[in-house]
Amino acid sequence: MDSQNQYCVARPIYSTRAFEHANERQVRETKSFKEKLKNSCRLSPKLPMMIVKKFFPIFNWLPIYQLRLWLPGDIVAGITTGMVCALQGLAYSLLVGVGPIYGLFAAFFPILPYFILGTSRHLSVGPFPVTCLMQGAVVFSLAPDEMFMYAGNTTDNGTAPMVLNVTARDSQRLSIAATMTVLIGLFQFGMGVAQVGFLVRYLSDPLVGGFTTAAAFHVVVSQLKLIFNVPTNNYNGILSFFYTIGDIFKNIKQTNMVDLLAAVLTIIVVMGVKEINAKYQHKLPVPIPIEVIVTIIDSGVSYALDLSTRYNAGIVRIIPRGFIPPRQPDVSLFSSFGGPSFSTAVVSYAIAISVAKVYAAKHDLTVDGNQELIAFGISNIFCGCFSGFVATTALSRTAIQESTGGKTQVASIISALMVLIVIVALGPLLQPLQKSVLGAIVVSNLKGMFMQVHDVPILWRKNKTDCIIWVFTFTACIFLGLDVGLLAGVVFELGTVVIRTQFPSCATLGNVPSTDIYKNMKDYKNITEFPGTKIFKCTAPIYFANIEYLKDQIKNKVGFDAVRVFKKRNKALKKIHRLIKKGTLKVTENGLVPVAPLGVDNEAFESERDPGQVEGGSQKEVEDGARSATEVEVQVDWSSTLPDGVTVPKVDIHSFVMDFSAVSFLDVMAAKSLKLIIKEFIRIGVNVYIAGCDDEIVMKMESMGFFDEMVNRGMLFLTVHDAILYIKMETGSEIADGSDVFAEKISQLQDEKALPYTEDEDFIETYDNQRLAIHGLSS
Amino acid sequence: MDSQNQYCVARPIYSTRAFEHANERQVRETKSFKEKLKNSCRLSPKLPMMIVKKFFPIFNWLPIYQLRLWLPGDIVAGITTGMVCALQGLAYSLLVGVGPIYGLFAAFFPILPYFILGTSRHLSVGPFPVTCLMQGAVVFSLAPDEMFMYAGNTTDNGTAPMVLNVTARDSQRLSIAATMTVLIGLFQFGMGVAQVGFLVRYLSDPLVGGFTTAAAFHVVVSQLKLIFNVPTNNYNGILSFFYTIGDIFKNIKQTNMVDLLAAVLTIIVVMGVKEINAKYQHKLPVPIPIEVIVTIIDSGVSYALDLSTRYNAGIVRIIPRGFIPPRQPDVSLFSSFGGPSFSTAVVSYAIAISVAKVYAAKHDLTVDGNQELIAFGISNIFCGCFSGFVATTALSRTAIQESTGGKTQVASIISALMVLIVIVALGPLLQPLQKSVLGAIVVSNLKGMFMQVHDVPILWRKNKTDCIIWVFTFTACIFLGLDVGLLAGVVFELGTVVIRTQFPSCATLGNVPSTDIYKNMKDYKNITEFPGTKIFKCTAPIYFANIEYLKDQIKNKVGFDAVRVFKKRNKALKKIHRLIKKGTLKVTENGLVPVAPLGVDNEAFESERDPGQVEGGSQKEVEDGARSATEVEVQVDWSSTLPDGVTVPKVDIHSFVMDFSAVSFLDVMAAKSLKLIIKEFIRIGVNVYIAGCDDEIVMKMESMGFFDEMVNRGMLFLTVHDAILYIKMETGSEIADGSDVFAEKISQLQDEKALPYTEDEDFIETYDNQRLAIHGLSS
Repeated sequence: MDSQNQYCVARPIYSTRAFEHANERQVRETKSFKEKLKNSCRLSPKLPMMIVKKFFPIFNWLPIYQLRLWLPGDIVAGITTGMVCALQGLAYSLLVGVGPIYGLFAAFFPILPYFILGTSRHLSVGPFPVTCLMQGAVVFSLAPDEMFMYAGNTTDNGTAPMVLNVTARDSQRLSIAATMTVLIGLFQFGMGVAQVGFLVRYLSDPLVGGFTTAAAFHVVVSQLKLIFNVPTNNYNGILSFFYTIGDIFKNIKQTNMVDLLAAVLTIIVVMGVKEINAKYQHKLPVPIPIEVIVTIIDSGVSYALDLSTRYNAGIVRIIPRGFIPPRQPDVSLFSSFGGPSFSTAVVSYAIAISVAKVYAAKHDLTVDGNQELIAFGISNIFCGCFSGFVATTALSRTAIQESTGGKTQVASIISALMVLIVIVALGPLLQPLQKSVLGAIVVSNLKGMFMQVHDVPILWRKNKTDCIIWVFTFTACIFLGLDVGLLAGVVFELGTVVIRTQFPSCATLGNVPSTDIYKNMKDYKNITEFPGTKIFKCTAPIYFANIEYLKDQIKNKVGFDAVRVFKKRNKALKKIHRLIKKGTLKVTENGLVPVAPLGVDNEAFESERDPGQVEGGSQKEVEDGARSATEVEVQVDWSSTLPDGVTVPKVDIHSFVMDFSAVSFLDVMAAKSLKLIIKEFIRIGVNVYIAGCDDEIVMKMESMGFFDEMVNRGMLFLTVHDAILYIKMETGSEIADGSDVFAEKISQLQDEKALPYTEDEDFIETYDNQRLAIHGLSS
Repeated sequence: MDSQNQYCVARPIYSTRAFEHANERQVRETKSFKEKLKNSCRLSPKLPMMIVKKFFPIFNWLPIYQLRLWLPGDIVAGITTGMVCALQGLAYSLLVGVGPIYGLFAAFFPILPYFILGTSRHLSVGPFPVTCLMQGAVVFSLAPDEMFMYAGNTTDNGTAPMVLNVTARDSQRLSIAATMTVLIGLFQFGMGVAQVGFLVRYLSDPLVGGFTTAAAFHVVVSQLKLIFNVPTNNYNGILSFFYTIGDIFKNIKQTNMVDLLAAVLTIIVVMGVKEINAKYQHKLPVPIPIEVIVTIIDSGVSYALDLSTRYNAGIVRIIPRGFIPPRQPDVSLFSSFGGPSFSTAVVSYAIAISVAKVYAAKHDLTVDGNQELIAFGISNIFCGCFSGFVATTALSRTAIQESTGGKTQVASIISALMVLIVIVALGPLLQPLQKSVLGAIVVSNLKGMFMQVHDVPILWRKNKTDCIIWVFTFTACIFLGLDVGLLAGVVFELGTVVIRTQFPSCATLGNVPSTDIYKNMKDYKNITEFPGTKIFKCTAPIYFANIEYLKDQIKNKVGFDAVRVFKKRNKALKKIHRLIKKGTLKVTENGLVPVAPLGVDNEAFESERDPGQVEGGSQKEVEDGARSATEVEVQVDWSSTLPDGVTVPKVDIHSFVMDFSAVSFLDVMAAKSLKLIIKEFIRIGVNVYIAGCDDEIVMKMESMGFFDEMVNRGMLFLTVHDAILYIKMETGSEIADGSDVFAEKISQLQDEKALPYTEDEDFIETYDNQRLAIHGLSS
């Protein structure tokens, strides 16, 4: 067992080049676009049927519909859901700002196209408070009350009070809502055709969490007006949330106590019974339809006591019977709500697809994101033409439909029939219903959305960034309104992805003795660096936003700035040459030997210019020095003791290994900068190795012209250990901790490779002028 | 040598847990914020000086100024640059839409604060066409000619022609330009104080390339009006580029031939001489100041021939002498150009810092990004108060200053003195200068920006994404205008970063025989998969945007869907139980044995429901089946032959290894989904191992609650090879290519681990109901 539990490997050291030499590469098949098209269009006898099934998913399940098994469940589910659907339609119409009958339309029409086109079998299609509110924001801002005021009859004191033209206002609002619904549908349909359903993935869980919680707050504030039955102005955009609250408090004295009482009672009863429903979920055959019961009771009480006349309660008042004919959307309005329509389209789709996926996973079915976009698109266009408003789904409603036994969209059709009955027959019976009760029902349905606040501390513990996304989106949505807030949230979220890669964690690695394992030096106690080498690991893609940071990190980890070292060495060389010329320094077999005690003779030189302040020295002077000294060729061993007054930064490494195993991509800027970094190291005699680079990235590097004579594929190694072994082999030294022999070896290695270089032609020239020493006393 | 060129490792197999057991971890020092603050505030005698030097970088170089060495160069450079500066100021004022004298102010004032506050020693601070144009766009849109028309005196035929109130217009334009400059300064100063200079890194090279090239086109179009001296309307925003061109062509018949001729001559001469300057750069002591020469000649000719009166040429006309007193910016205007000001602030800083960095690198100096922001901020505020416009730098001007010997900002001060001379003395002499000549000078300075078009094909070859960023930014800037285009470009660019990680390259890895190397199966010929295992590598961070894609990729690479397999197996179990109940199947030592030929007895079963269409089967039915069968316990070997009519998807692996070495971060959604994926695999008896995960990511996973009883740290291995060796050890089999013995082992391993599981509690319940077999005929 013990011998089995061993990791034993004996193989050649592999540079990428050596590896590819030993192992034959396979040419990847790259099918041309034409071939791909041909393959996908290959005719088969089943093709027409497949196409039909793809675009009309109903044919996937209707032909195998099992009447005996599925129909009973579908009927029960359909009836239960239908009641909820109708009631939610009525209630949510208040959010959109149109008459309650249109809420019933919104609960009825979208189901029909979805029945044929939708891929989810459990989704209960219909209105959802968040999307209704987003539509309402547009409706109220484009058709505020103020637009429909006209001077009424002159009163006794000679002034004409302003009167609201309710008919004109409601007709305009309806037109806006219906047209916007069509536009939303067009957006969704277009996105479906363009197959960009994947874009919805940008709406991550924390983002959606923050958004829907903020939406719940907005919904409550919008319903407070109805619950208290106080007048408020219509605010929109930035800070409208707070202005509305301000208005409610300003007018709180006008509260209608009957409406408030009914609303509070409704909230208590509905939320209480919902608790019971949840608790006894498994014991109840169907959940108690408490909203329906409350509605019926309130309608009865309101009618019996004539609350409207006697207590001035706000009631629904008019629910006409039957349908209105379809009408053309007012295309001229499109431009005035393009942005909000797009965000509503995205949100409504995002909600629907996430709910659909939950139930698809549960029942081992699949939903097709793009087909869903098309289905919702057509449903909304259809619904908009029949004066409905935007359709998506609600998790709660779909949960009811599924838990009461709904198997297919047949349940939805039956629920639509229920709504139809209300539309054509029962509507007028609901006319005495108090609006505050409807508002209270809306509010009581938001519990789940509010409960998401509990996610925040959990998220904070799990991942700060995700928590910040949640809070940012929430705050943005509260302050800026839902559509702008959502956009801000998405931009912020994408920003965090960039930021996360912009400051990657960089580490210096060390070897775990007698293994091939390299770990962060900071993390383990018993790990060692091979003398004269530095291993640097970057855990991120390298691209324009983080290349500067990476440069700083490299400087930081190696402990010197390669460019600066090069400059300093050139300056020192110049100085040495001057000393040689002056005769104060001599070139011998042992290196540079001072002829006279430097301390004396150097005074004159030092007074000329303070060696401590050589930065920014005159270019001309440097060049002069360079030219005058070119006749003498000196090889300076930079790690040996230099003459007094000549100082260069210490470079204590001869090899620099970059572990690229966690680099997932490079862009052009990164490739350019990396190449320069490598050349700067080579120029001062430090060899650079790249280890663990993914084959695909090597290919990318090649196509970006990363490799040339100096930066060549020979520096690529399969693993860090391969590179280190190679370095060991090259230095010919077995771990000889900083011994003199080793230091000599290092400097020798450095000197052999040292040469001036830079990308910029201008630089090359300067360096060439300054370059003094190539040959001479090589040891 | 041969024995040296060997990679030999013998060590225990390390799971992360085993490794951490063997190697002591070091506790990382985490300094608290308080400590950090304390450290950074530690008093030292040098501290006050350091602070002064940090905020007033002039003290870094002025005390060590080497008069004899540096001053001559600074003087030559200052005079040369000063002439160019003055002239460019004059010319660029036309882009901003203010009088030429203000261009001189813009070339003079910003230099003074920068002298004290700037960290670059070579930057020639002053106007730049792109930023001037961006400011001009705002000026022209907020104060168009139309705003200042009034009805003039009634003419003979009784109509009053509209007359332009030039004084009012120019005063308003000046006020807008100066106020905007102050706002730009405030933005820059604020960003500097907030230390967010790093944000400028989002302006990557391709983006800036596309942007400046588009800007060059915009500048040319804006100057065509002057060159042809034809009237155009002021357009702004979307498509204004094309409207302006349209206007020019419409009025092309009104071209003033004298102006056009002068402009064309200027362009030819200036560009020609600039070629010569570039070619004989090293032979000429200073470049020929051709623009200055052309300007002087044209002023002379225009004055002598009285071009303005005789040929109606457009001349500069008024250049007052001297300064105007500083004035307060019109704060009420701030809100009307907040957005454009911000983008201009960013662009002007981005240009300056990139040029500064080039020269800092060349001279081994450093520039401090945030201090530069502060310096430019104060320069612009100062300049704006003195009626100048926005300051940045121009590469060409700075190049002149540096190449003619400029060593420090003393050169800039001397150039400012030159501009001062023009302001107080020479200005009026330039009054007869033709505007078209100034326009032509602007155009001839754009060659470098236009030449960037050549980058496009190079970029395309190097990296398609970067090329697309270039083209997108260019197109957006042409069509949408510079500020909106830049924003669009940045958003697009950040989008590409997300997209690049959204569809990461995923690969199945195989082992290079007798090594520890694992490579993409598609890339090499002689690599093998260890039977029953799949190694999956993902080269990207895993987060909300790509987790779904990753799931699909995993399904794709392993060849089955774990959830589906589980469901199918449960269904099959139910069926087997029914068969056992019916007596057609018997449980024996050899597994399941049919009692009667299944073909006969099964007919009835099959007619009841087509086994090919079991998808979406009745939930109730499944549960019924499950309940009725719980009394019998059967262990099914899924890889053995199953009874007829019972089919489950084939799972041919027992171990799934995920190589996480290239995963740079995980977010909460990814952790959640990954956990679910792992559990789904474990549920169907496939062991999951994670290899090469960075320590930091392991820590992140822990804090996100990734590990529990089922998904535990025992599945983490240091390398893929460690995991594979562990798997080999566990299976106790040495590579036994798919032999029967091995297959048995696989199924045994799978069965031992197989258990139903899911994240969702609802699911667990369902599965628990369906779960039939735990014990029984275990082999």
